Amino acid sequence: MGTDPRETPIYLDYNATTPVLPQVRDALLPFLDTHFGNPSSDHPYGRAAAEAVQRARQLVADLLGCAADEIVFTSGGSESDNWALVGRVWAAGSDRAHIITTVVEHPAVLNTCRFLERRGVAVTYLPVDGTGQVDPDDVRRALRPETVVVSVMHANNEVGTLQPIAEIAAICRQAGVPLHTDAAQSVGKVPTRVDDLGVDMLTIAGHKLYAPKGIGALYVRRGTALEPLIHGAGHEGGRRAGTENVPWMVALGAAAALAHPTLETEAARQQALRDRLQQLLEEKAGGVTLNGHPTDRLPNTLNVRFAGIDGNALLTAVPEVAASTGSACHAGETEPSAVLLAMGIPPAEAVGAVRLSLGRLTTEDELERAAEALAAGVARLRAR
Amino acid sequence: MGTDPRETPIYLDYNATTPVLPQVRDALLPFLDTHFGNPSSDHPYGRAAAEAVQRARQLVADLLGCAADEIVFTSGGSESDNWALVGRVWAAGSDRAHIITTVVEHPAVLNTCRFLERRGVAVTYLPVDGTGQVDPDDVRRALRPETVVVSVMHANNEVGTLQPIAEIAAICRQAGVPLHTDAAQSVGKVPTRVDDLGVDMLTIAGHKLYAPKGIGALYVRRGTALEPLIHGAGHEGGRRAGTENVPWMVALGAAAALAHPTLETEAARQQALRDRLQQLLEEKAGGVTLNGHPTDRLPNTLNVRFAGIDGNALLTAVPEVAASTGSACHAGETEPSAVLLAMGIPPAEAVGAVRLSLGRLTTEDELERAAEALAAGVARLRAR
Repeated sequence: MGTDPRETPIYLDYNATTPVLPQVRDALLPFLDTHFGNPSSDHPYGRAAAEAVQRARQLVADLLGCAADEIVFTSGGSESDNWALVGRVWAAGSDRAHIITTVVEHPAVLNTCRFLERRGVAVTYLPVDGTGQVDPDDVRRALRPETVVVSVMHANNEVGTLQPIAEIAAICRQAGVPLHTDAAQSVGKVPTRVDDLGVDMLTIAGHKLYAPKGIGALYVRRGTALEPLIHGAGHEGGRRAGTENVPWMVALGAAAALAHPTLETEAARQQALRDRLQQLLEEKAGGVTLNGHPTDRLPNTLNVRFAGIDGNALLTAVPEVAASTGSACHAGETEPSAVLLAMGIPPAEAVGAVRLSLGRLTTEDELERAAEALAAGVARLRAR
Repeated sequence: MGTDPRETPIYLDYNATTPVLPQVRDALLPFLDTHFGNPSSDHPYGRAAAEAVQRARQLVADLLGCAADEIVFTSGGSESDNWALVGRVWAAGSDRAHIITTVVEHPAVLNTCRFLERRGVAVTYLPVDGTGQVDPDDVRRALRPETVVVSVMHANNEVGTLQPIAEIAAICRQAGVPLHTDAAQSVGKVPTRVDDLGVDMLTIAGHKLYAPKGIGALYVRRGTALEPLIHGAGHEGGRRAGTENVPWMVALGAAAALAHPTLETEAARQQALRDRLQQLLEEKAGGVTLNGHPTDRLPNTLNVRFAGIDGNALLTAVPEVAASTGSACHAGETEPSAVLLAMGIPPAEAVGAVRLSLGRLTTEDELERAAEALAAGVARLRAR
């Protein structure tokens, strides 16, 4: 970015990605050159790297309240999601398997399911209500003897709605079917201790958590049969081949360590700012409707629509704010968000959605300026 | 590493991994925080990241002499190898497929083949001669109507032997079967222009090339049908889902740009140093046998055995040198190297192998000191 304000708009797109925090950056840098060894190498360069990976694994495990050997590092949330599904189908030994998921999952889950359907796997896509939540009883009704995995996201990336994971987990446990949750959006924002959630697999994406893009993890509860997605040498306990991405693993550990002690205070701070933003928009622009659950929602996420306004047109009219109309992964698409349509929002209203997602670096001053700019943009567009 | 010389031995393990070069480090750093956007985001933060990824893709393509859209970034060599094989089987739409590979491939190829065999895929493992080379006629004889891919590595990681890829490619092309080559060890060390090699897919691993661990690419020739290994949103032209690892992609581009103009001079420099090392070892220690091809070999790789000496015992006795007895990926194993056994070297001699691999930072002074230390170690062990 230059110093031109049009090039450094107020960043309210933390659900798309986060910057690497200075403490995380400082932690990873020595592993680019000084400690550059291959953790598999039996000499000091290798051993220093291997020890760093183990420390990082423990820090991630601490955030989730699990054992270190239940954390397998991956290249990110998409790989973790793919692995949880394909790995369960492969572990079952037959493509005549059944998967239960929801219509509001991230494309890394939905498109993997669609691919598996083409291979003969049966998939049940559960609906959501007007707030974006799944009914746990729908999970119970969808279970079959050949169900190999249930995959329900913890928090939706677009509207922030939190799913009743613990209730769904109780149902899955009774049926003996592993539950996977894509927690890419929730880790570091709300509590995600795996025993409280009751999940058997959980996806982490580093770049939603102030670690870099290209690193993630899959929590795999001991005893969960899962075929590797990436076969090869014995890295990650034989579960994920590939020379360890040491700097990024150290970074994810550092980010987890930063998130852990400040989880509640930062959630409260961002939620207060977010609610202030909503209040300001209602006061200054008016005609604001919330998309998502009013309370069971990520503390940093405000997805709203403005009566009579197109979301893309609004963000184009307000270059002072960097935000998103759908999830960033779908950018370029002009259709209304599938998540909002699944929630029963009419297409003509769904195209009005704007996702404003706050983060650890968001200040009150930024918030006030963003509200001002957005309200002015709405007024200009309505005046046309 | 500290300043204790036992903690900073002479690094002769560049085939295991390389440090990130300062120029590569400088190129990637701004993408940790200043330019931290998600390339899918339609605002300045996102666009700056997307442009950097495209520049990096072009730099990698330039090194291989291909089009930018034929380069797909992955999390590393293992993912690229897995994808080339599994993606071809999936693209064929049936597990009743056939793969041809060799007995000396990296575990990322071999163990993926073994996994696919358990799923019903047929695999032919071609032998090698005493230098580690495959006979192209063996490829011709192994081809079947249902062969979906031939995978032969460009350079072996342990002994450095180069395969006759262009000859194999001519045979594959005639049969209409795509040829994949794992070029993790050769890219940046010897010419790897895809049209000269004649390959349809080629694996790159960043950390063998002075870029970080956790980034790689698969070259996929236009027209090669390949199902994604990681499904999801439309990243990498819909071929590899996952938010782009922007800093590491920029790093791989920078590493490719550094390797490109100095490929020949650096290869000649390292080859001269390597041959000097062999000469010194023969003079000072004696009883030295080369493992691998005498000439068709990576310019940086010297795999040797010393009469009557165990390789692990030697490296333990010489802490001044950081090297490897097999490939780093297999460290911890005590069995003789499968690659050396496949070359017909008796087990009792194969356990004597030591791999000394040089790199861009290797100096003549380091070389002399390493030879001195290794020869003294051999003498001590023989005197026992």
